[in-house]
Amino acid sequence: MASYSEMTAEQLAEQQAALLVRYNDYKSRELSLDITRGKPGADQLELSMSMLDALNSKSGYTDCNGVDCRNYGGVIGIPEARQLFASVFDVSMDEIIVGGNSSLNMMFDTISSAMGNGLLGGEPWAKQGRVKFLCPCPGYDRHFAICEYFDIEMIPIKNTPTGPDMDEVERLVQSDPLVKGIWCVPKYSNPTGITYSDETVMRFARLKPAAKDFRIFWDNSYFVHHLFGEDVKLLNLLKECEKYGNGNMVYMYFSTSKITFPGAGLAGMATSVENVKAITHRMGIQTIGPDKLNQLRHMKFIKDYDGLLAQMSRHAEIIRPKFLCVLETLEKELEGFDVATWTKPDGGYFISLDTMKGCAKRTYDLCLDAGVKLTKVGATFPYGKDPDDTNIRIAPTFPTLEELELAIEVLCVCVKLAAIEKLLEKAGK
Amino acid sequence: MASYSEMTAEQLAEQQAALLVRYNDYKSRELSLDITRGKPGADQLELSMSMLDALNSKSGYTDCNGVDCRNYGGVIGIPEARQLFASVFDVSMDEIIVGGNSSLNMMFDTISSAMGNGLLGGEPWAKQGRVKFLCPCPGYDRHFAICEYFDIEMIPIKNTPTGPDMDEVERLVQSDPLVKGIWCVPKYSNPTGITYSDETVMRFARLKPAAKDFRIFWDNSYFVHHLFGEDVKLLNLLKECEKYGNGNMVYMYFSTSKITFPGAGLAGMATSVENVKAITHRMGIQTIGPDKLNQLRHMKFIKDYDGLLAQMSRHAEIIRPKFLCVLETLEKELEGFDVATWTKPDGGYFISLDTMKGCAKRTYDLCLDAGVKLTKVGATFPYGKDPDDTNIRIAPTFPTLEELELAIEVLCVCVKLAAIEKLLEKAGK
Repeated sequence: MASYSEMTAEQLAEQQAALLVRYNDYKSRELSLDITRGKPGADQLELSMSMLDALNSKSGYTDCNGVDCRNYGGVIGIPEARQLFASVFDVSMDEIIVGGNSSLNMMFDTISSAMGNGLLGGEPWAKQGRVKFLCPCPGYDRHFAICEYFDIEMIPIKNTPTGPDMDEVERLVQSDPLVKGIWCVPKYSNPTGITYSDETVMRFARLKPAAKDFRIFWDNSYFVHHLFGEDVKLLNLLKECEKYGNGNMVYMYFSTSKITFPGAGLAGMATSVENVKAITHRMGIQTIGPDKLNQLRHMKFIKDYDGLLAQMSRHAEIIRPKFLCVLETLEKELEGFDVATWTKPDGGYFISLDTMKGCAKRTYDLCLDAGVKLTKVGATFPYGKDPDDTNIRIAPTFPTLEELELAIEVLCVCVKLAAIEKLLEKAGK
Repeated sequence: MASYSEMTAEQLAEQQAALLVRYNDYKSRELSLDITRGKPGADQLELSMSMLDALNSKSGYTDCNGVDCRNYGGVIGIPEARQLFASVFDVSMDEIIVGGNSSLNMMFDTISSAMGNGLLGGEPWAKQGRVKFLCPCPGYDRHFAICEYFDIEMIPIKNTPTGPDMDEVERLVQSDPLVKGIWCVPKYSNPTGITYSDETVMRFARLKPAAKDFRIFWDNSYFVHHLFGEDVKLLNLLKECEKYGNGNMVYMYFSTSKITFPGAGLAGMATSVENVKAITHRMGIQTIGPDKLNQLRHMKFIKDYDGLLAQMSRHAEIIRPKFLCVLETLEKELEGFDVATWTKPDGGYFISLDTMKGCAKRTYDLCLDAGVKLTKVGATFPYGKDPDDTNIRIAPTFPTLEELELAIEVLCVCVKLAAIEKLLEKAGK
């Protein structure tokens, strides 16, 4: 197949005509497809239904220390849950908090606490001027939304296949005391699917921030969410940081939202013992504590690290064909035309597609008109602004395989149509 | 029985000698009793065990609108739970949010939001100077702890049998724009057990605050928690406020912590539609939403308002004998000596005891030495300071009846010993 950019205007117009036939055919079908949502499909949720039976009126209600999980008490989480995540992340149990149902909520709280009250005795961020966060992108829109809510200035950082551009990260973190944080999805990243290299993690650990209260927000959402073959190993940032006396610099977040039930899962944090103390002190004022019964329910269901991995391989069996379907369709439809590139993730929930420059919004609109809803273009960038207008996030998990295949076919036709329009426009036709 | 204050020093010394015999006898028994904790006893928790079975792998997982409660989506709570609380509180469903497991967490969040971000477009409290809260007392220590955490100045307000001293409340709220809030436990109050009179509620509703962003924090923890005979009716503050265009002035909080499971219950808010919109907007950034499965579990168990009341009368049957035991023991041991007064609540979780002035701390210490742990004296006042050193909060629910009776006997002996010491000291002996 020939690259569009090497075609003459006439050849492009021919291609366009053929594509429009397909496009109008899709349109006439009155489709209603949605590939925006990074949420598990109903078949994945079925995998955890027996968890609802695991805690019942006969199953016992005490944690491993004999504490009655039905009553008040404790903010740090039940010991067996903390122990599980301590082994998963290879940190000490004292470095783990298991909380409520939302790691996003924990991130929001951390920032709210830093803004209003300050970290480890430091001045509240809100009193230090307009603070800044580094935002590797494309990234996760809900991270950016938190920054916007607190009026934290976002500085985009280019994401590379090994992680954020660490030269830029080092330069900014080490020179500007108003740079207080960086958002990272270090494993099977949202949306590119890449995992940070050891070198990247080590450079994070060795940072010498200009701000004493600089923090790495390490959103490890996809820590066991691999899809193909071997798990991609992510270096242990907390341990690396501790080597350089930087243990307080990292907040790692995780959840079981995409392991058990989104919304009815467990969320947690791993961080230094000093940070854990400060956070649980605040939690002691903020809340009566997490839902210990749901923690117990999870432990009765997941049991241990092996149980966790077994559950994840069941998820992978369901999701894998969906990722393969997207990748095969993209390849079949787009390979060789030189109109788009896309990621081939080993895990996580997304495939990231880059159209030709300036074509993402047009692709989005064309898809929408044909009944296919894409994640809003720009959502993966701070302030919703994709400077090159190229990035489209594909979420393969929620639709059925049939819906997904059709949606991606439509998407591909639209990507090509948008590219042809752009090329014809450039050629002045 | 004669009042201690009318006794001669010699008579007091005689009484003291007899009490010391009893006191030393208690001491020799090496007791370990605790009446500090306003938490349900294990027998009360048994009442909700079948809730754990109500949601299971066969019971269905959709809300009344067919939404899959296992997946992401929605921050405002499932419709049937919102509808239940709308009928309980006689407000519209649009005025109800059903959230996570902790109403304390919702209160903390409201204040955190007001401090850092401002309410309904107003300037953040933190930027307006050192803001102030009115704190009717004796009151709930965890309310005061939130104020202390945010460095909000607390102004104590005297609690009367009909609610806070409303002359003071009106004077301060209507003159000082830095007065931003007031903490109220309007029904079966913590710790006095009183319920605000209609007149008090109406005076709240008619307030003309100097601050546009003044709010009433109406912690309706004990809304169906009556113990004896008829429910004491609390006037509907939200409706009353709306009559005077003051709907945005009230945040009402509630939870099922003491209906189902503390920590694994549901918490919620009732407030104006405009406030609900602002809060759910924030929640949309803050969290992936509440645990909808636990909301569904609750609805399958509680079903409706009648189900709620039936559950509460089962609780009352367990708790009532404990309250009666405390009241009878107090009467038997203290009546006529003129050394203490106490409340006789119709509901809630506490009995409030006032010793002679300057005797509460000494009573606490004497109890502690005899193996009976009381709520820390001062805990029911801002900054932990009871100006008269008189208030002791008794929490009858957690111990067994036998433990409770013994603990109150010890308490009474200590109240009398402390009073005699004080009287002898005054008499210069």
